[in-house]
Amino acid sequence: MTVYRKALFDIPADIIYLDGNSLGPLPKSAGARVNRMIEAEWGQQLIRGWNDAGWMDQPARIGNLVGRLIGAPAGSVVIGDTLSIKVYQALAAALEMRPERKVILSDSGNFPSDLYMAQGLVETLGRGHLLRVAAPAEVASAIDTSVAAVMLTEVDYRTGRIHDMPSITAQAHQAGAVMIWDLAHSAGAIPVDVAGSNCEFAVGCTYKYLNGGPGAPAFIYVRPDLVQQARPALSGWLGHAAPFAFEAGYRPADSIERMRVGTPPVIQMSALEAALEVWDGISMDEVRVASIELSELFIGEVEARCPDLELASPRHPGQRGSQVSFAFEHGYAVMQALIARGVIGDFRAPDIMRFGLTPLYLDVDDVIAAARVLQEVLEQELWRDHACQPSNPVT
Amino acid sequence: MTVYRKALFDIPADIIYLDGNSLGPLPKSAGARVNRMIEAEWGQQLIRGWNDAGWMDQPARIGNLVGRLIGAPAGSVVIGDTLSIKVYQALAAALEMRPERKVILSDSGNFPSDLYMAQGLVETLGRGHLLRVAAPAEVASAIDTSVAAVMLTEVDYRTGRIHDMPSITAQAHQAGAVMIWDLAHSAGAIPVDVAGSNCEFAVGCTYKYLNGGPGAPAFIYVRPDLVQQARPALSGWLGHAAPFAFEAGYRPADSIERMRVGTPPVIQMSALEAALEVWDGISMDEVRVASIELSELFIGEVEARCPDLELASPRHPGQRGSQVSFAFEHGYAVMQALIARGVIGDFRAPDIMRFGLTPLYLDVDDVIAAARVLQEVLEQELWRDHACQPSNPVT
Repeated sequence: MTVYRKALFDIPADIIYLDGNSLGPLPKSAGARVNRMIEAEWGQQLIRGWNDAGWMDQPARIGNLVGRLIGAPAGSVVIGDTLSIKVYQALAAALEMRPERKVILSDSGNFPSDLYMAQGLVETLGRGHLLRVAAPAEVASAIDTSVAAVMLTEVDYRTGRIHDMPSITAQAHQAGAVMIWDLAHSAGAIPVDVAGSNCEFAVGCTYKYLNGGPGAPAFIYVRPDLVQQARPALSGWLGHAAPFAFEAGYRPADSIERMRVGTPPVIQMSALEAALEVWDGISMDEVRVASIELSELFIGEVEARCPDLELASPRHPGQRGSQVSFAFEHGYAVMQALIARGVIGDFRAPDIMRFGLTPLYLDVDDVIAAARVLQEVLEQELWRDHACQPSNPVT
Repeated sequence: MTVYRKALFDIPADIIYLDGNSLGPLPKSAGARVNRMIEAEWGQQLIRGWNDAGWMDQPARIGNLVGRLIGAPAGSVVIGDTLSIKVYQALAAALEMRPERKVILSDSGNFPSDLYMAQGLVETLGRGHLLRVAAPAEVASAIDTSVAAVMLTEVDYRTGRIHDMPSITAQAHQAGAVMIWDLAHSAGAIPVDVAGSNCEFAVGCTYKYLNGGPGAPAFIYVRPDLVQQARPALSGWLGHAAPFAFEAGYRPADSIERMRVGTPPVIQMSALEAALEVWDGISMDEVRVASIELSELFIGEVEARCPDLELASPRHPGQRGSQVSFAFEHGYAVMQALIARGVIGDFRAPDIMRFGLTPLYLDVDDVIAAARVLQEVLEQELWRDHACQPSNPVT
């Protein structure tokens, strides 16, 4: 069975979209679903939509849909806020689980916002915590008994390099540390076994490989046996055990719903819920096989056609997520030239061109065509017509 | 000039909507705008929408639209996250401005989530801070030099009682405390002069009187002279001075944008931006005149027709926001009976029926008709057909 479902997406005919690792394209069902939500639910049901249209249950309901794709059991994932907020929640709870330790360990391949949120928390706590950042290849060996929490992104946003999630988690546990995984570039990209890894926390976003739309809300997983020990630092009313009792004191819910904070973004949630229907019946193992086939083909084609580019991703497909990156001195201008010709990837400073290989809507012909355009841009130096100044694309 | 613009809203013909204090109705422009955002921007521009469709600038652009309605200068308000998150940001920054003080002062009329967020922050800080909660009428006199931050909601969510914002702010400042106002039930409801009050922080939501849709994002104001002293505890990448430089260390933006955290919910933002067009050319003073006219009429009609109901809002219109509440033992069942007859208000435990009087889409005829239905429900005891068990409506 193929995982190729391009007919379920609205992608402009003249575009080859290799940027699903940054923002997934529009699933056709999302537009219709949001339209219905706005007109029939908000418009007609008004305040009654919170109960009658199921708005209040969306965060847990959609959490289960995401959970299936990352190996998390039902009832262990909830949707809301942004990934940065979910990182903060996980980290704050993790540090309280190891009050005698002061070190947060991460790596320099982590997405900067994760590091920033940790820095902010350390400063808020004001109790001598320390964010220690190792090189990705050295982070596992940097885990020692001073570490309260290890916080890593499984798939590197620049290179696509995969951390060994079960192995690093085991090392963290052996040293007595709490493990937090950021699955931003994993969910919908590669098979993930959150429960099997035994990690305490996992977080991620839904607007990349899950195609939830720009600014789609994030998710958080807490290992079920620890939910009641994970204190919500961001103790908003919808994480309360009885939000509508309007009690004076905060009492967290017994379940993963304690990680909810404020009123959920219902319109945005509706787009995400529709987008996840695309995954009905798809296994992540099948996605992985197809993703590797496309990635290997792309690397082969590009290396044959564009000898000046240097592969910046691991060569072994087992060590790579669902993106391929190449380094090139004029990478920014090359990417602008590609985009002008309908091949959309993106660029990360200083010299990385990223290409997301997403088998739900890309096939072999797309990959070969993209490599051909890249060859043309390089051979004819078409990139010289483009600015060398990066503007601000989004991760 | 009238502020009545019902033609700009999609409200079912058989509904009198008195719950705009909880969730505003659908502005016609919002559906069309979201549809365009999804199909033409997300669908066609894909990742390029962040720059080409202005997604990245939305939080500040929409912040200015909200700012105009609350008396905040351009560049002092930014949109994002939920109100609970914005409360946390304001409170965390405020406490750091008064490191030698340990008391957060609020009142029992505050919305519980504000109190919960404060409790969570106190516990996270672990430095002996204390949330002190006074009765609304006594909170001003409870301000003393032990207080680091006074955190109040200007308009009480149950009764509609208005705090005297300039006077309490002045008292807070006289005692050396930082003032934080929650404008959830003020923005779009009554004239607010945030800048004139001289408060340090203000926060609020946009899904009530501003009609931004269920789960529309929140706003935060920081007094311009203090922006650079307000450390973002939730230090996400989009609050960074150079988010796309992907630096290893967090450096907050010089402006109000430092209060941004993660990737903004673009679909939800688009609905809000369209909803705010309804306010073009409207002055809050005109809204206030019309709101008082409707509220006074409603109180008069209800008291004449329904002698068993007790006014739970201040009788003087100057002390009341844009809602009117009545207490009644069987208030929950009465509200269910009203809703079944097309008059939508809501209920807050233990016995409060709330009615939002919103002159943008309600007129004198609506108010009289609603009072008539209420009379009928009470006189004929039609509420006895309805459940007495509250479910979960949303604030």
